[in-house]
Amino acid sequence: METTPDRLIESTRELLWERGYVGTSPKAIQQRSGVGQGSMYHHFSGKPELALAAVRRTAEQMRETAERELALPGTAVERVSRYLRRERDVLRGCPIGRLTQDPEVVTSPQLRAPLDETFEWLRGRLADVLAEGQARGEIAPGLDTGDIAATLVAVLQGGYVLARAAGTAAPFDQAVSGALALLAQRA
Amino acid sequence: METTPDRLIESTRELLWERGYVGTSPKAIQQRSGVGQGSMYHHFSGKPELALAAVRRTAEQMRETAERELALPGTAVERVSRYLRRERDVLRGCPIGRLTQDPEVVTSPQLRAPLDETFEWLRGRLADVLAEGQARGEIAPGLDTGDIAATLVAVLQGGYVLARAAGTAAPFDQAVSGALALLAQRA
Repeated sequence: METTPDRLIESTRELLWERGYVGTSPKAIQQRSGVGQGSMYHHFSGKPELALAAVRRTAEQMRETAERELALPGTAVERVSRYLRRERDVLRGCPIGRLTQDPEVVTSPQLRAPLDETFEWLRGRLADVLAEGQARGEIAPGLDTGDIAATLVAVLQGGYVLARAAGTAAPFDQAVSGALALLAQRA
Repeated sequence: METTPDRLIESTRELLWERGYVGTSPKAIQQRSGVGQGSMYHHFSGKPELALAAVRRTAEQMRETAERELALPGTAVERVSRYLRRERDVLRGCPIGRLTQDPEVVTSPQLRAPLDETFEWLRGRLADVLAEGQARGEIAPGLDTGDIAATLVAVLQGGYVLARAAGTAAPFDQAVSGALALLAQRA
C-alpha cells in the first residue's frame, strides 16, 4: 500500500513535470494527493523539501532506465541508438530538464544539485560506451568522447524543446536521426 | 524616445525570459516598466496580447542575429561553427526555448506559433547552409541536411539546459564542440 509520504512525493512529481516549481503550490499538492495540510507538514517541512524528494526519485528512475538500455550488448552506435530512440512521451518533455527553466530551482544549490548530478552521470555513462566503441574502431580515434556524450544529451534535451514548440514529436525524431547519422559516418 | 507600448513590451520580454509566462504577472510588468495599470490596458488587452508582442519581437531579433552570422562567407562547417559559437549569455538560457516549458504557452496556439515558426525558420536556414556545403563535397552525400539542421538547433537548446543544470557554460561548449567535430569528420 502507498504511504502518505509516497502519495505526496508522487503528486509533487506530477505537478513539477506539468507546471514546474514556481507553478506548483502546497495547496495543489494537497489537492492532488488527497493529503491534508496538517499531515503534509507533519511529513515534510514544506515545498522545497517535498520538491527535493520528488526530484531525487525522478532522477533515480531516469538513471535506472538509461542504465538498463545502455547495458545491453551491441556496438557503441547500436547501444546509443537504443537509448536515444527508446519510447518516450516526447511532448511531455523531460521531468529533469524542464526544471532548469525554473529560476527558483537553478538559484537553489540544493534543488539544482540532483539535476546536475543526473546529467553529469548520463554524460559519463555515454562517454564510457563511446570510448569502448572507439577502442574497437567503431568511432573515429580523434573524437573526444566526453564532448560527443554532451552533444547526445543536449540533442535529447533540445529535441524536447523543439517538439514542444512544434506541437509534434517530429523535430525530436529528426534531431536524434541526424545525431546518429553523424555518429555512424565511420561505420 | 521610447514609447509607452515599447516600454511595456521590453519589460514583458525581460520578465518572460527571467520568470516565464506563468511567473509573470500584469502587476510585475507595470512595476518593471513604470507604466500604470490604466495606461497598460489602454495599449494592450492584457497579458496574452503583451506576451505575444514580446515573443514576436524576441523571435525577430533571434532571426536577424542568426541571419547575420550565417550569411558570412566560408565553408558550411565554418558558417555553422560561427553561429553555434557566437557569444551567448549561456546561463540565461534562450528566451524562445524557455517558453516551451510553460504549459500555458504550449497549449495556446497563438502563443506557441511564433516559437514554432522561429525554430522552423532556423532549421530551414541551417539546412540550406549544409546543403550548399554538401554540394561542394564538404559534407558526406548520404547525410540528410534537414535532420542535421534539427540536430544542431537541438544541441543549442539542450546545451542551455545542461549549462543551467550545471551552473556553468562548460557543458554547452562541450555539446557544441562535439557536434562540430562530428560534422567536420569528412573535412
